[in-house]
Formats: sequence, structure tokens, C-alpha cells
Amino acid sequence: MPFVHRLRVRFHECDPQGVVFYAQYFAYFDVALTEMWREAFGSYGEVVAAGTDVVVVEAAATFRASARFDDDLDVELRIDRLGTTSMAMATAIRRDGDVLVEGRIVHVFIDTATMAKQAIPDHMRASLQTYA
Amino acid sequence: MPFVHRLRVRFHECDPQGVVFYAQYFAYFDVALTEMWREAFGSYGEVVAAGTDVVVVEAAATFRASARFDDDLDVELRIDRLGTTSMAMATAIRRDGDVLVEGRIVHVFIDTATMAKQAIPDHMRASLQTYA
Amino acid sequence: MPFVHRLRVRFHECDPQGVVFYAQYFAYFDVALTEMWREAFGSYGEVVAAGTDVVVVEAAATFRASARFDDDLDVELRIDRLGTTSMAMATAIRRDGDVLVEGRIVHVFIDTATMAKQAIPDHMRASLQTYA
Amino acid sequence: MPFVHRLRVRFHECDPQGVVFYAQYFAYFDVALTEMWREAFGSYGEVVAAGTDVVVVEAAATFRASARFDDDLDVELRIDRLGTTSMAMATAIRRDGDVLVEGRIVHVFIDTATMAKQAIPDHMRASLQTYA
Repeated sequence: MPFVHRLRVRFHECDPQGVVFYAQYFAYFDVALTEMWREAFGSYGEVVAAGTDVVVVEAAATFRASARFDDDLDVELRIDRLGTTSMAMATAIRRDGDVLVEGRIVHVFIDTATMAKQAIPDHMRASLQTYA
Repeated sequence: MPFVHRLRVRFHECDPQGVVFYAQYFAYFDVALTEMWREAFGSYGEVVAAGTDVVVVEAAATFRASARFDDDLDVELRIDRLGTTSMAMATAIRRDGDVLVEGRIVHVFIDTATMAKQAIPDHMRASLQTYA
Repeated sequence: MPFVHRLRVRFHECDPQGVVFYAQYFAYFDVALTEMWREAFGSYGEVVAAGTDVVVVEAAATFRASARFDDDLDVELRIDRLGTTSMAMATAIRRDGDVLVEGRIVHVFIDTATMAKQAIPDHMRASLQTYA
Repeated sequence: MPFVHRLRVRFHECDPQGVVFYAQYFAYFDVALTEMWREAFGSYGEVVAAGTDVVVVEAAATFRASARFDDDLDVELRIDRLGTTSMAMATAIRRDGDVLVEGRIVHVFIDTATMAKQAIPDHMRASLQTYA
């Protein structure tokens, strides 16, 4: 079942066209990942303290409609594929159920000591599979 | 020939990992588009004043290496396809010639009065083709 | 009684020093103002639709300690002075009760039609006084 | 003589009111500081590598007029006072000579190893005095 985080669009996240600036949606995906990590693992900080971090290696989005200041948005992350060292998520942003943005983001797991790729730890893999 | 805009990474565009936050690269593409519009059409404002704006409908990037604070980056935009109402660009970000990010961004042309799609004006199409 | 809005520090709001970038605290004050407007007047959008907007004319802050990624912060706004057309607020940002930032922000009320200063509408003044 | 750095307002730095979001001006002061450090000391990174960093402890600004997308702005930093461990600068942002923003920012010098306050190194003090 996908992870969903609700957030509200801030004034300064919108541009002179009156809509959320397109790069900001990618920041929303990152905010939702932090909240997914909290639900799954306690917090992002705890995972990093245990030696595992993630970095974005691919990101894509299709923009179907615009979000505006003060809109409540549901940012959805669904695990699409768990590789040995990487995790691909399908992303979506909805307002009142309508899809505004659909995307994809791929993270690679790294060892915080060496900054090298590492296999997804087993206990993390098990938790993440619940968001498939 | 692609359009290239050089910019310098600002401190606050970097995150606690010490590197440019991934969503920021998409903002860099937008900054470069503004400069391409300046070179091709005088300025973004003049194009809008003449009734034509663009909105992003698709964006994607692959992150190969990280940019850091104070790096000089070359943001490259190459026109890949000019449709009736849309423009697809291949994007790249280089540091000292090394490709850090490769991407793709698709804009749709709209009429500022109606906000509806419009055909790319002929004189703009001619100018944009020089960036193929 | 001051208005307090709780928010959580996002990863990309922090800089390579690992702490919230100082300009971001001013954005937090704005986020809190939006929430104060919601509590007091329904929403920021309703107030604008009724013809009244606010613009910042002065802002100041003293930074006593740093907030970090994932911190829960209480952003406090207290009405300090309601002039004819302007509103001065004392601001504070607390983490677990400790003051990290103290500041001051002054807004001027404007008529959205003319963009000229306007007197604070009586019903708004009455509501705002409850945050003194 | 004050240090002046020219920059161009980016689209996403503006908000739905069509003007630069007020917190962004504080980011501009930081961008200008980086360029002042480059002129005075080689680069910000070299100063940090030599063991000295700065943190903002106070910031204030008065907003007289609005900057807009694509405006060329002159960001001015003038050293107002060099204390034992702190540096106060008067700041201004001009467009075609007109002052849009006037401010003040105070930095404290810290030792990067201990993160404790340190006296401004003598050679830095000498260089900074030229911006008085």
C-alpha cells in the first residue's frame, strides 16, 4: 500500500504564474520520503546514524494540472522495485483525489562511512515492501 | 548548437549532504531557459507581453555526480523536438566538461490571454531551431 | 495570546553547515502568518478575495541557536502594535520551549485593487487584537 | 568602499504577488558575502579550509520597493563595525541606483574545529576594513 503524506502549499513555493514552481514538486517527494522513513524506521536520522543513507539518482515527473497556494496535497510514494542497492518509487500528487503530478524517483542506498553503494539492509527491505 | 548558461552554485542551494539538492537542478534548467529566451527573443518578459508563455509538462533527470557549493556549472539546453505546441529539450549540467546531470524537459506553449495551448509562433520556431 | 504554528524542518531547508539556512526562518514566519490568517479569517485567500492583502515592510531576527533537519519548531507570532495601516508582530521560534530565534516583522495592509495602503478593516483589527 | 555584487532575479525567487519573496533578499545578502569572500580571500572554501567560518547572528531589512523577475540588482555590503569576534555590515539592494532594500547583518567568526567564537584573524580584518 503506498505511503501518503499530506502537506499544504506554502506561498513562497508558488511563482508569478500563481502556481507551484515545477521544481518544488520534487522537493515535496523528498519531504514525503522523510515521513515514510519516520513511519517505517523511526526517523531518517536514526537510519543515517545506523550507517545507511540514500541519494537520488533519477527523478521524473509529468505535470497534469497545477497546485496553488494553500492547496492541501496528498504526496504518494509507492515502492515499484527494490533492487540490490536501489529503490524505484512511483510518485503521485493529488488534490481532492485528482492527480496533478505523476512521477518516478530512484534512490541508491549508500554506506555513510564510505559513501559507496551498499545492499539494502534486510530489515529495511522488509519494511519497504509493505509500500509496494 | 545547444544553448549554454554558466552559473555558480549558491550556499543555500546545497543540503546537509554538502551537495546541490536534487530539486535545485530543475530550477537551474529554468534559469537557463530564461537566458535562452533573452538571447533568442530579447527577454522572457517581452515574449509574455507579446502573448506567449510556456509551462513545463514533463521533466526528468539522471544524476551522475554531485555539484558542490561555489562550483561553476554549465547548464546546457538543446532543442530535441519542436512539435506543434510543445518543445522538448535535452538538458545537461557540466562542471569542467564532466557531465553531472542529464535530463529532459518538455514545455507547452500557451496563449497568455486564454491559458490554452497555442502553436509555437513561426518566428520563435525559427530561432529555437538554431539550438537543435 | 500569541499565535503558534508547529512545523517540521525539511531536509532542503538546511545548508551544508547542517542547520536551517538563516533566510528560511523568515519563510517560516510567513507560513505561520498564513495559518494565523486561517484561524482568524477563514483563509488568506478569502481575505485577498475581499480586497485586502498585506506586504512585508520590515523584518528582523536574532539567531540564538540553530534548528536542524527534522526538528519540530513552534513558530510564534504575537501582535505587538496595530497602527492605522500597519501591523507589527514579535516573532519567536522555539524547540522544546527553548528560543532559537527572536524577531520582528511589520506588514502594511493594502487594497488589492489599487495596491495602495489601506486602513486595517475593523473586523480584522478586532480579531488580530486577540493575538496581542 | 562597499562591496557590490550584481545578480539577476530568477523566476522562482518571485511569488504570486509577482515580486521577489521577502526572505529571498536575505539569501541575496549571503550570495554577495560569498563573492566578497572570493574577492578578499580567494574563496569561501579557502577560508573554511584554513579553519575560519562565519555564522549569522542578526539580520534585518527594510523593504522600500519590490524587485521583479529578471531585474538586475546590485547587492551592496558595507562593513559597518569589526568587533573582536563579530562583523556588522550595512546592506542595500539597488536597481538602476534606486534603493529597494536596506538592511543590516551581523556575523560571528567561529573556529571550524570547535565551532566556538574566535577573534577575527588579523589578515582578514585588514582586508575587510577596505569595505568600510
